[in-house]
Formats: sequence, C-alpha cells, structure tokens
Amino acid sequence: MSTSPLTPLPALSLILGGARSGKSRHAEQLVESAGGDCLYIATAVGQAERDAEMAARIADHKARRGERWQTIEEPLDLAGVLIREARAERPILVDCLTLWLSNLMAGERDIEAEIDTLVSALYEAGTGPKLAGPVVFVSNEVGHGIVPMHPLARDFRDHAGRLHQAVAAVADSVVFMVAGIPMTVKAP
Amino acid sequence: MSTSPLTPLPALSLILGGARSGKSRHAEQLVESAGGDCLYIATAVGQAERDAEMAARIADHKARRGERWQTIEEPLDLAGVLIREARAERPILVDCLTLWLSNLMAGERDIEAEIDTLVSALYEAGTGPKLAGPVVFVSNEVGHGIVPMHPLARDFRDHAGRLHQAVAAVADSVVFMVAGIPMTVKAP
Amino acid sequence: MSTSPLTPLPALSLILGGARSGKSRHAEQLVESAGGDCLYIATAVGQAERDAEMAARIADHKARRGERWQTIEEPLDLAGVLIREARAERPILVDCLTLWLSNLMAGERDIEAEIDTLVSALYEAGTGPKLAGPVVFVSNEVGHGIVPMHPLARDFRDHAGRLHQAVAAVADSVVFMVAGIPMTVKAP
Repeated sequence: MSTSPLTPLPALSLILGGARSGKSRHAEQLVESAGGDCLYIATAVGQAERDAEMAARIADHKARRGERWQTIEEPLDLAGVLIREARAERPILVDCLTLWLSNLMAGERDIEAEIDTLVSALYEAGTGPKLAGPVVFVSNEVGHGIVPMHPLARDFRDHAGRLHQAVAAVADSVVFMVAGIPMTVKAP
Repeated sequence: MSTSPLTPLPALSLILGGARSGKSRHAEQLVESAGGDCLYIATAVGQAERDAEMAARIADHKARRGERWQTIEEPLDLAGVLIREARAERPILVDCLTLWLSNLMAGERDIEAEIDTLVSALYEAGTGPKLAGPVVFVSNEVGHGIVPMHPLARDFRDHAGRLHQAVAAVADSVVFMVAGIPMTVKAP
Repeated sequence: MSTSPLTPLPALSLILGGARSGKSRHAEQLVESAGGDCLYIATAVGQAERDAEMAARIADHKARRGERWQTIEEPLDLAGVLIREARAERPILVDCLTLWLSNLMAGERDIEAEIDTLVSALYEAGTGPKLAGPVVFVSNEVGHGIVPMHPLARDFRDHAGRLHQAVAAVADSVVFMVAGIPMTVKAP
C-alpha cells in the first residue's frame, strides 16, 4: 500500500455537525482521500462497556473503516498522542472532541487548561501548524437548542462552544455538516 | 387556472430548518412559483384533535395557503401517496417529514425500512428521480442541541438525522432556513 | 477620540449563533470597526443579582469592551431606547434579543405586539431603516434541538424564531456564527 498522499489534506480540519449528520463518514472519506495508511484516534474508551447504544455505534464505525486504518484509543491525553503519532505520511482522524470533553469533565479536569494544551500542541502563533502530519477533528454541535435545565449540561455546551472556537481559530478548514452535506465555514 | 409551470422546480427539494424558521412559508412560495395547482400532503393527522397548539398551527398554515391548493392527509404511507399523486403539472409539498417520522415511531414501524421505501419511491440509482412531478419536502432540524436525556428523544433525533441524510442524498436542492432566510446547502 | 466612522456599518445587522459561538465578540469587533464611540445596550438587567453564572459572563464581557463603550441597561423598552439613542456617529450593539424576549415573557407582555413595536422602530416599508445610526443585534439560536418538553420552553423558542425572522427581514446583514466564524446568511 502506497503511503504517498494523493490529495493534499489541510494541516488541520474541523468537521462539526449535529447528531447523525454524516460527520464521521465525511471525515473518514477526507482522510482516506490522502491515500495510504490512516490513524483513527478514538476518544470513546470504556463507553462501549457501559453503554449498549455506544457499543453498537463504535462497532458500526469500525466495520465501515477498512484495513488501511490503525486504531488508538485515548480518552484524555489527546495532545500527547497527537504529538507522538502525527507524521506527514499518515493522516489522523480524531473522533470525537465532544466525547473527549465529556471524558475530561467526568475526570474533573481543568477544561480551559486542557483546551490550551491541545491547541498548543496543534499550532504556534507566528509559526503555524506544529504537527508533522494532517489531522481531522470530528465534533458535535450541541449549542443550538434551548438552554438546558441541568447545570452540568449547560457547562458541557459552554465548554464545547469554547473548544470549537479554539480549534476552529487554528484550523485551516472548518465544515458544518447538514443532512450529510458539508457546508464550508472556513476554507483552506 | 393555468397548469403550465412558470418556473422549473427541481425534481426533489428538501427544506430543513429549526422551529419557526420560515420553512413552510418558503416551501409554499417555492411550490407556488411553479404556477398552476399545488398539492399539499399533510403528515399531521389526528394531531389537531389531541393537541391545541398543533391545531392552531395547522389552521394558520391552511389559511395562508390559497385556493390553488388541494390537501391530502397521510400520516404513514408517504411513498404510496407520492407514487399515486406525483404528476408533472402539479408540484407537491410534503409538510413535514419529522411529523411523519413521529407517526411511524408511534406506530412502532421499522424506521430504516420505511426510509428505504420512501427513498426508493423517489429515486433510482443510475436513472435518477422516479416521480413524474416535482416534490418539496419540509423537515425540522432537531439534532444541534444537547444529547436528550430520554432514549425515545435520542432515537427520534438519530432517525431524523438518518432520514435527512437519505433524502438529501437524492435531492437536487437542499436549503437550511436561518431566521426566515434560505441558506443553500446543495444547489440543483 | 475621533467620531468619524472608518468602515461603513450596515444600518441593521443581526448576529445569530449558538451558545459560546463568538457572537458577542464578533458583534463588538464589528461595532468598533466603525471607529469612535460605541453604545452597548444590555438587556440583562437584574440577572446578575439572581444568577452567579450570568454575573460572571456580564463582568467578562464588560472587561473585554474598552473605554470607548458606554453602557445602557434596558430590559424591556428596546424600541424606546433605540429611538432615543440611535445617532449616525455612534453605532449601537444590542446584546441580546433572547434575553429581551425572556424579560418580556417574565413580564407577561404581548410578545407579538412587542416584536411589532421593535420592528416598527427599526424600519418603515417603502422608506427603509428609520434609526439615524447603525445598530447590531446579537441573539441566540435556540430552535435546532429536540422539541422541549415544557410548554414555556416551547413558547420561548417559537417566539425566538418569529423574532429572528422579523428582525432578519428588515436587517441589511445577517450572519450565523459557527465555532467563532461568521457565516453569511444575508449580505448587505
């Protein structure tokens, strides 16, 4: 299998969208279009054991991805695994940022600090992207509904909004999925 | 009343949007712009009896549509009524897919099979649109908020996401309504 | 400090977006780009006393705005304060319409009538914008989630949808913020 890229992927892409809007599928096609081997960083770790719905989704996503994909599970240290694994010849898909955020909140981490750590691993002001290879992030838009009644849900959507703003600010490409179709928010 | 179209409507259009975003009004104007008689397929059947809010909305929508419109109520067999009624000289408005989905779930139907049946009535791979006349679908975007606590609400928004993807994939035109203004998602 | 505008602002702008999508920051930059003094009309009045979360947000927003800004708090009579304060040499930021709506509902006002009063202050059919200076409105999109279970929340999102349609219809510019990035919905 060739490892030379067929299509140049932007250094950093963010694929946002609602529930079942085709985010993962679009991101996989994007990463595969680069040709060669691909790395899938799954932030869903342990969810499959606790949650039958999630287990079915993970199995479904895994079956869709072919043998070109290697999978690494990382619930918390996204910056660490990206710094270690990002190489020019192998694009990375991170699926998804909202589960990562959920893991951080469950672990009572300092969310603002974690977002800073992630963004610092991705990008340096004045220099640009820091990782050697392209990365595509998938995340759920959760902030366009009525204000949630539970403080934890309000915190979650506020953190998600800040996280998306921070990643989008350093991303070369941002798309918003509507009914399976990517709308361009920021073009490379 | 002339039945010759003034403006060519795409064979299949999907008008998505949030609550009170002007979806129905935009869809009505689109269908009326074709000139001649129009058919309104209402998936809200029985809701008016059970629900005063819904009754008021239905009456309001009905008053807005003029005498060029014929109305058929069909809560479940959307494919059947479309196959029977779609004619080149009379554009059809289906309002709305989310209520249809809600009816299917209340009737404990197999949602994936029902979506397949609808899409098969609309489109054939290799051949294209199958109905003789243009159809405009209206549907509610419900997947951009916090993950709902109730499993039924989660199922509903997952099914809605899949339904929108399936219809958008075969539609010629997809728009997303924001504050009454159509944003183009897929252009004919 | 010069009061001559550097960049011509449209007469009426609407900045919509989800929670923490960068609406206020974008609106502030837009208003400041006009040069000179700016007026901030805060519809959050009393919320700071009742709600620690809101107090923190208000303080945070206030700290971000510099000394070029004057602040007026007006929870209900938005039309009145706009008619009184709008002057060509001082752009106005209204932050935000959803809190204004929330205040109106808490005060059991007639929402449709209040929306009419606001729009009548902004715009006259045939003549165009009525205020002497440019106004930028910020508002939250709340209608893209699952139908809320509580009738009050349903009413709120229905009113918000109607309010956004009414303001967008007379606005010269409408943008929808996604992850801190403005998407053009209606261009001047």
